[in-house]
Amino acid sequence: MLITLVMSNRSINEMPIGIFDSGVGGLTVYRALHDRLPNEHFIYLGDTARVPYGTKSMATVERYAIENSVFLASRGIKMLVVACNTASALALPKIREKIGLDGVGVIGPGGRKAVEITKDNPHAKIGVIATEATVASNAYYEAIRRASDTAEVMQAGCPLFVPLAEENWTSEPETFSIAEKYLAAMKDFAPDALVLGCTHYPILRDVIQQTVGENVKLVDSGEATADEVAALLKEKGLENPNAVSGKRELCDDLDHFYVTDAADRFARVAERFLGTKPSKLEAVEVYGVDELGKI
Amino acid sequence: MLITLVMSNRSINEMPIGIFDSGVGGLTVYRALHDRLPNEHFIYLGDTARVPYGTKSMATVERYAIENSVFLASRGIKMLVVACNTASALALPKIREKIGLDGVGVIGPGGRKAVEITKDNPHAKIGVIATEATVASNAYYEAIRRASDTAEVMQAGCPLFVPLAEENWTSEPETFSIAEKYLAAMKDFAPDALVLGCTHYPILRDVIQQTVGENVKLVDSGEATADEVAALLKEKGLENPNAVSGKRELCDDLDHFYVTDAADRFARVAERFLGTKPSKLEAVEVYGVDELGKI
Repeated sequence: MLITLVMSNRSINEMPIGIFDSGVGGLTVYRALHDRLPNEHFIYLGDTARVPYGTKSMATVERYAIENSVFLASRGIKMLVVACNTASALALPKIREKIGLDGVGVIGPGGRKAVEITKDNPHAKIGVIATEATVASNAYYEAIRRASDTAEVMQAGCPLFVPLAEENWTSEPETFSIAEKYLAAMKDFAPDALVLGCTHYPILRDVIQQTVGENVKLVDSGEATADEVAALLKEKGLENPNAVSGKRELCDDLDHFYVTDAADRFARVAERFLGTKPSKLEAVEVYGVDELGKI
Repeated sequence: MLITLVMSNRSINEMPIGIFDSGVGGLTVYRALHDRLPNEHFIYLGDTARVPYGTKSMATVERYAIENSVFLASRGIKMLVVACNTASALALPKIREKIGLDGVGVIGPGGRKAVEITKDNPHAKIGVIATEATVASNAYYEAIRRASDTAEVMQAGCPLFVPLAEENWTSEPETFSIAEKYLAAMKDFAPDALVLGCTHYPILRDVIQQTVGENVKLVDSGEATADEVAALLKEKGLENPNAVSGKRELCDDLDHFYVTDAADRFARVAERFLGTKPSKLEAVEVYGVDELGKI
C-alpha cells in the first residue's frame, strides 16, 4: 500500500536511482553518481550479511543479486545500478529480466572506457584486475572485445585486495608487497590502461598506480558507469527536473541507505570512504525476496 | 519420512556427530575429531554461501548458526560440534535451546585447555587471537575466567588471517609481516599460552609460532574440543560400539560433507588442508531452515 501511494504522488522522473553492492565497496560508485548527477536521489543497498560475492558461485551470486534488485525495485526506483562487479559479471541478464527496469552494470561501462581512452593505439593493451569470480566469468574480456576487436587483454585476480581495502590498509608496506606479487605478470604485460574491476579497488588506487607505474591509465568503473547512467537518463527522458537548492552533500537526507547486516560497521566504513556517515541508514532483510509481489 | 526410517534402523550410538563451520576452517576441527575418535562417523556442513561470520553481527551469526544446526539435526546426529569460533562465541546457548541436543562449542574447550597447560603458574598470562566478532563477544575471556580467576588475559583481532589462510599464504613474507603487525602488542604482553581462537588460524600455525616465539604454547581449540567430545561421549554412553575395520582415512565414505555453495572450491581447499578430497560432498540449501519440522 505504501509503495502504491509513493508512486502515485510523484512522476517516474522524480524517483530515485537504486544502487546495490555486496557491501561497502559500491560506495565508490555512489560517490561517482552523486557527483555526476546532483539532481538525482539514490537508494543504496549493501548486502553486508552475505559479503563477499567474489569467491561464491554463479548460482548463489545470481540469487543474491535478484533478491537485492527486487528489494530496491519495490522501493520505487526509475533505474538500477549494479555497482558490484561480480554481480554485474554473473547476473545482469537475469536481473533485467526479473525487474523489468533499466539495469546498468559496471562491466560494460568500464570495458568501453578502457577502449575509449586507448583508442589512439589500435593494438592497445588493456589489463583488468578483479575478483576470482569476475575473472573466471570473462565478462570484462567480452565487454572489451565488443568495443574493440584488436585490443589485447590480460586479466588478473587479486583476492586479498578486498580484505585489505576493508581494513583500510591503503599505504601499508604489506599492501605494496602483495600488490607487487599480484601484479608481477601484469607489469610484464605492460598495459596502456588497467581496469579496476572491483568496487573496492579504487580505495587502493595509489598503491596500484605506484605498482604498475604512473604511465598506466587506471579506469575506475564507477566513474565510467556514472557517465553512462547520465547519458541513459537523458536518452530515456528520465532526468529529475527538480534542481536541488544549495549544494548537495554526500550522504545527505535525500539519499537512503540500507544494509542487510551490521549497520554500525557500515556507517564507520562509509565515514572512512566518503568522509561522512549516511543520514538515513536502515538494516533490512532481503532473503527470499525474489518476487515483487512478496514485498 | 526418510529421517524416521534412518532413526528407526540404528541406535543413537551409531549415529554420526554433526560439525558445522562458516566454511572450510572447521576442517581442522574435523581432522582433530577424526583422529581422536576413529569409530565415529561425521557429518560436516560448511556454510560457504555466507562465509565469513567474523565480521557480521550477533543477530545474523545466530540466525545462520541455527539454520546450520537444524539442518544437521534433521540428518540424524547424536551430538553437535560448533567448529566455528564466532558461532560458538555468539550463538551456542540459542543453538542448544533450539535443537535439544548436546552442542559443544570450541571456546570453552580452548579456554580450559589454555588454563590447564599453564596451571603451574597461578598468574599465567593467556593470549587469545580471533576474529573481530569473537574478540568483541569476550567469550574467550569469560571461558578462561571461569577456569581461573587469576590468569591474565589479552585478546587481539587478526582480520586478515582468514583471507590469508584461504589463500594458503602459509609462508609468504607478507604473512609474516602482517603477523608482526597484529601480534606486536601481544608480544609485549608475553603470554605463556596463546589460543588460536579461529578455525583458520591453525593453518598459519608456523607463522604465528615464529612470530610470538617458540616458548609460547599454542592452543588449537580443535584439538581441545576433540578431547572434550571424546569425554562427553563416554560420560553419556554415546560411543559408537562398532569398531571400524581397517584404518580410517580422512574424508572416507563414512563421513558426509555438505556445503551451501561452491562445492568444487571447497573440495580444492579441503585437499590442501587435509591432503584428500571428501568422498561424499553435496551442495545444499539451509536458508530459512530454522525449525526441525520444516526440513
